[in-house]
Amino acid sequence: MSTRVAILGATGYTAAELVKLLLRHAEVEITAATSRQDGNPPLGTVHPALSGRTDLCLENLSIEQLVDRADVIFGCLPHGLSGEYIPQIIQAGRKVIDLSADYRLDDPAVYYQWYGEVHPDPARLAGTVYGLPELFRESIRGSDLVANPGCYPTSAILALAPLAQDGWIDLESVVIDSKSGVSGAGRTPKLTTHYPECNESIAAYNVGTHRHTPEIELILSKSSGRPVEVIFTPHLVPMDRGILTTTYSRPTGDASEEELLARYREFYADEPFVRVVDHLPATKDCVGTNFCDITVRLVRGRILTLSCIDNLIKGASGAAVQNFNLMCGYPEATAL
Amino acid sequence: MSTRVAILGATGYTAAELVKLLLRHAEVEITAATSRQDGNPPLGTVHPALSGRTDLCLENLSIEQLVDRADVIFGCLPHGLSGEYIPQIIQAGRKVIDLSADYRLDDPAVYYQWYGEVHPDPARLAGTVYGLPELFRESIRGSDLVANPGCYPTSAILALAPLAQDGWIDLESVVIDSKSGVSGAGRTPKLTTHYPECNESIAAYNVGTHRHTPEIELILSKSSGRPVEVIFTPHLVPMDRGILTTTYSRPTGDASEEELLARYREFYADEPFVRVVDHLPATKDCVGTNFCDITVRLVRGRILTLSCIDNLIKGASGAAVQNFNLMCGYPEATAL
Amino acid sequence: MSTRVAILGATGYTAAELVKLLLRHAEVEITAATSRQDGNPPLGTVHPALSGRTDLCLENLSIEQLVDRADVIFGCLPHGLSGEYIPQIIQAGRKVIDLSADYRLDDPAVYYQWYGEVHPDPARLAGTVYGLPELFRESIRGSDLVANPGCYPTSAILALAPLAQDGWIDLESVVIDSKSGVSGAGRTPKLTTHYPECNESIAAYNVGTHRHTPEIELILSKSSGRPVEVIFTPHLVPMDRGILTTTYSRPTGDASEEELLARYREFYADEPFVRVVDHLPATKDCVGTNFCDITVRLVRGRILTLSCIDNLIKGASGAAVQNFNLMCGYPEATAL
Amino acid sequence: MSTRVAILGATGYTAAELVKLLLRHAEVEITAATSRQDGNPPLGTVHPALSGRTDLCLENLSIEQLVDRADVIFGCLPHGLSGEYIPQIIQAGRKVIDLSADYRLDDPAVYYQWYGEVHPDPARLAGTVYGLPELFRESIRGSDLVANPGCYPTSAILALAPLAQDGWIDLESVVIDSKSGVSGAGRTPKLTTHYPECNESIAAYNVGTHRHTPEIELILSKSSGRPVEVIFTPHLVPMDRGILTTTYSRPTGDASEEELLARYREFYADEPFVRVVDHLPATKDCVGTNFCDITVRLVRGRILTLSCIDNLIKGASGAAVQNFNLMCGYPEATAL
Repeated sequence: MSTRVAILGATGYTAAELVKLLLRHAEVEITAATSRQDGNPPLGTVHPALSGRTDLCLENLSIEQLVDRADVIFGCLPHGLSGEYIPQIIQAGRKVIDLSADYRLDDPAVYYQWYGEVHPDPARLAGTVYGLPELFRESIRGSDLVANPGCYPTSAILALAPLAQDGWIDLESVVIDSKSGVSGAGRTPKLTTHYPECNESIAAYNVGTHRHTPEIELILSKSSGRPVEVIFTPHLVPMDRGILTTTYSRPTGDASEEELLARYREFYADEPFVRVVDHLPATKDCVGTNFCDITVRLVRGRILTLSCIDNLIKGASGAAVQNFNLMCGYPEATAL
Repeated sequence: MSTRVAILGATGYTAAELVKLLLRHAEVEITAATSRQDGNPPLGTVHPALSGRTDLCLENLSIEQLVDRADVIFGCLPHGLSGEYIPQIIQAGRKVIDLSADYRLDDPAVYYQWYGEVHPDPARLAGTVYGLPELFRESIRGSDLVANPGCYPTSAILALAPLAQDGWIDLESVVIDSKSGVSGAGRTPKLTTHYPECNESIAAYNVGTHRHTPEIELILSKSSGRPVEVIFTPHLVPMDRGILTTTYSRPTGDASEEELLARYREFYADEPFVRVVDHLPATKDCVGTNFCDITVRLVRGRILTLSCIDNLIKGASGAAVQNFNLMCGYPEATAL
Repeated sequence: MSTRVAILGATGYTAAELVKLLLRHAEVEITAATSRQDGNPPLGTVHPALSGRTDLCLENLSIEQLVDRADVIFGCLPHGLSGEYIPQIIQAGRKVIDLSADYRLDDPAVYYQWYGEVHPDPARLAGTVYGLPELFRESIRGSDLVANPGCYPTSAILALAPLAQDGWIDLESVVIDSKSGVSGAGRTPKLTTHYPECNESIAAYNVGTHRHTPEIELILSKSSGRPVEVIFTPHLVPMDRGILTTTYSRPTGDASEEELLARYREFYADEPFVRVVDHLPATKDCVGTNFCDITVRLVRGRILTLSCIDNLIKGASGAAVQNFNLMCGYPEATAL
Repeated sequence: MSTRVAILGATGYTAAELVKLLLRHAEVEITAATSRQDGNPPLGTVHPALSGRTDLCLENLSIEQLVDRADVIFGCLPHGLSGEYIPQIIQAGRKVIDLSADYRLDDPAVYYQWYGEVHPDPARLAGTVYGLPELFRESIRGSDLVANPGCYPTSAILALAPLAQDGWIDLESVVIDSKSGVSGAGRTPKLTTHYPECNESIAAYNVGTHRHTPEIELILSKSSGRPVEVIFTPHLVPMDRGILTTTYSRPTGDASEEELLARYREFYADEPFVRVVDHLPATKDCVGTNFCDITVRLVRGRILTLSCIDNLIKGASGAAVQNFNLMCGYPEATAL
């Protein structure tokens, strides 16, 4: 007996990626893909890569219609909007994996500070599970609403959690320098992502102000039980997909590089989608997969981590399917 | 004594490239750069590559103000708009190099057919010189208004003119398959030029309908004295700049490949910006220069030409400076 | 009961792609991956994208050892070498899908003319099936040796077969202008594929001499029952993967564009991996899939086709798995 | 009266770039370009971008022949080799700008530690001027031998010098995270710079071991008068050219971001090739120029700098021409 799933907001890249993954899932039937645009265009017209692979058309459905159609909803709406619709879906008894940022933080005041908007559903913030299975697997299994992690936070938290837990590093000294492909900026054309502007160029953006900063701090704090402060700098790299995150921390002890690597291997020993590698990871080796590749180095008394993911898969839609599998009792790696 | 020049419509890529070239021209003073946008932003803000290299600000000037400021105007407006303003500038006794398509064709009916608009200045069409110095150098010298060639036409006409003149090929059999970098599509963000859409991909566009088709046919007809019909297919290639044009024609005689190469070497013997090469040209070798690299091959009874230019330089702003030099009596290669 | 498969020559890109596909195939057990290099390195070291996904190591196996290990062998050796080893494998009663060019032509003299070497196994040439299921499905099912098609030929033959069969075009007038990503050039570093040489550049190569020319002609001749001559020009495009092939032919009749599109839709109506599309196909929409996207246009009395594939999948390893499925009685689309 | 210059080792990217710049220099005559390869190929064959722009051929000259031909020699040999030939050239009374790393450090032991080789000319190490005009302009003017800076060090030192001098930051806390285009890896084909390996990917390399580390430390120490220790991590970015360097330091005082920007503006007030910008710099805006764009930010009590250069121009050949101009008494910006 298969699960009926729907995608709320299906015109962007994460939705397209999600459909590709779900089409491989033998136990899933995609029953709806919504959009406010008119005319019910076939999904294969909006995303030509999907043509011939699904008969789905975009539909402008009400929440009532949506919950009637599906048991599980993947939320691919922009932040702000997501938190407006999800309460109704939850109240209708449906499960939701929300790919927006709306349920990742636990404090409406922090949300307001970084997103500049009053949270539409503040009461649900503190109780929502953060959908990073490597840290919160059991809670995800029992949840009806899971906040799917941001792409940068996934790469940074997986890289730093083994150091943050049990106090291997000074948690006030963490520098996170991330490099992302352009698909992370979404599908709406802008000058900054216009091909001749960003091709053959690299630049930082949102220095000191990127909204993934409090998300990284919150989850590392939760995971380590202590306050964490990070300096997070994202950069735009001329490639479609992939994030490489380089972090710099001060160790509290004197573990050798071998001991650090052993720590990582043990920490992620049972994880199906984290590969602790000896070599310096390259984003290309993760692209198209749900893997996060991580290594750790000791350089002149500083601990460096290097981690790679595909921002659209482990950093978005792959993680969403992983969460879906956990929430619905399927083997965690199905379709991944 | 230097020449005062102005750029009409200075927010796009061709204008930025033009400024870079003109800043190297010892006899030129750039006195104005116009735009309808408000606030008189410094040119270095609109085009960060120009920051610190010029104090020019964008200004919303009237044509009266413009002709008061400059002796020569480079028109970088979109087609349609260009033909509205240029008559006034010419009447004020100024010289114009128009980078738009408005004065490249000679028949308002053909313009209407391909551009879908009534030409704003039809009387001036037939008499305007086409600014390809390799074919029309002497006429350019004496002109007040020169129609700067399109990028694809430059690569195709220079490749085919030695064959079209004196009847080396059947002029009804010409296939032109062109490949262009993305800057040719301009600076306005669109989905088709959004980085994650066009990166790592190649596709044809405007098959059978591209507006450079009649321009290529007209100029090759003028140059050869006979009617020319071409099949022209443009493709978008994931790179910033550069056009490679591959053409396929049926020979009328039985010239060998060596004789064909000799024909090209002789035809372009005195040209400063055409390099007839033995190897298969790559766009990279022309990018950043005003060169057009061309070779010719005989394959199974068909003549192939391969030609490369930088679409923003020899295909736009470099050609404009070359025309400017001819019109104003400077050495043709100045600043190029 | 699963099938034991081995990969002969597993250090290149097609082998890596083959492993990725076969790992998804529930009925396949990969039992060997060979290489002449020493030290039995894990496959995940040679191809980091495979790390953590397989325990296979490269082994320098004899043919005796190889046939002992596997029921079906995928040949990923270079041409010339492939034809040396395959006879032994066939004699041992194993099935072979050969990804090299060694069994694609049917005449040793033509092989010698284009490859410059005496064919190592000439007797088997004429009888070997060409592994393009869209044209030769039934023969593939019954074969022990299948010649997996070249990447350019796949894109060109699928685009032209509906026109070549039943005489829709003049078969002596066909121009094929192909554009390929760089992975098609293999994994051995060379100056022409050194990043700063081929990035941000496009050029033609092997004009008039590319070895896929006789392959295209042979298969189109077989398929149409008449002699075919083509002008084939390959170009190198700055992207990892994907081929776009644009063809130009003279029609023999006066079919409209709608009739041409209908012809294609009917011709490929039952094909799982050919998508006849209305829009102009982009390579990106096929990359990572086994699809070939095709459309057809009528421009000024000439028929144009545009077709896209992923050169490593439908143009190599995906087609190989498709052939494997046919040869072994699995559903044709398994793992694709 | 022009200066005769020669290029020692002219097959690489920096040499090609140098020739392009020197061809624009009205006071320079390039009289020789050397290589050990046979056959005296025209420079335009080895570097097709130079075809038609120079008649120079590569020659396998002895040092005697070289000093006979030229007044100034640009050394473009690999490190190790450079230090073998330069002593003879200096003894012959010629001026040298050495683009290798051989004269950048001042201590043969440190050279041995990082380069793994005994320095061929240790006596000259300590006295050689480091060719960064922004810090050592007057010494460069009077020198016969100038060590042209490394590309990463140029971007890092220019970014950090205003902070290192006068003690604005803790000099033991400096993290330098650099991102470079692939041309920085040179022109010799390798697997790591093979297009399908490094395209669409980003990775760190030489973590903790990159040879530019001691160069950065030495020059910042010289400039600040105090010991400096840095963590330097280079990354390879899929683009031809450009370096972006992001640095993270702890301030010693409590200067505001405005005060920091003012410090930079004052520090570089008279520099023709440093642009202190308000926006976050992108490498694209520097590529093709000799500019270094820098900005500074204060983020959560940490000082960040972001700086961009073209690694082949300001990071190599442009700096060499700037040094040449200073050493020979030409206006510093000539040909740049």
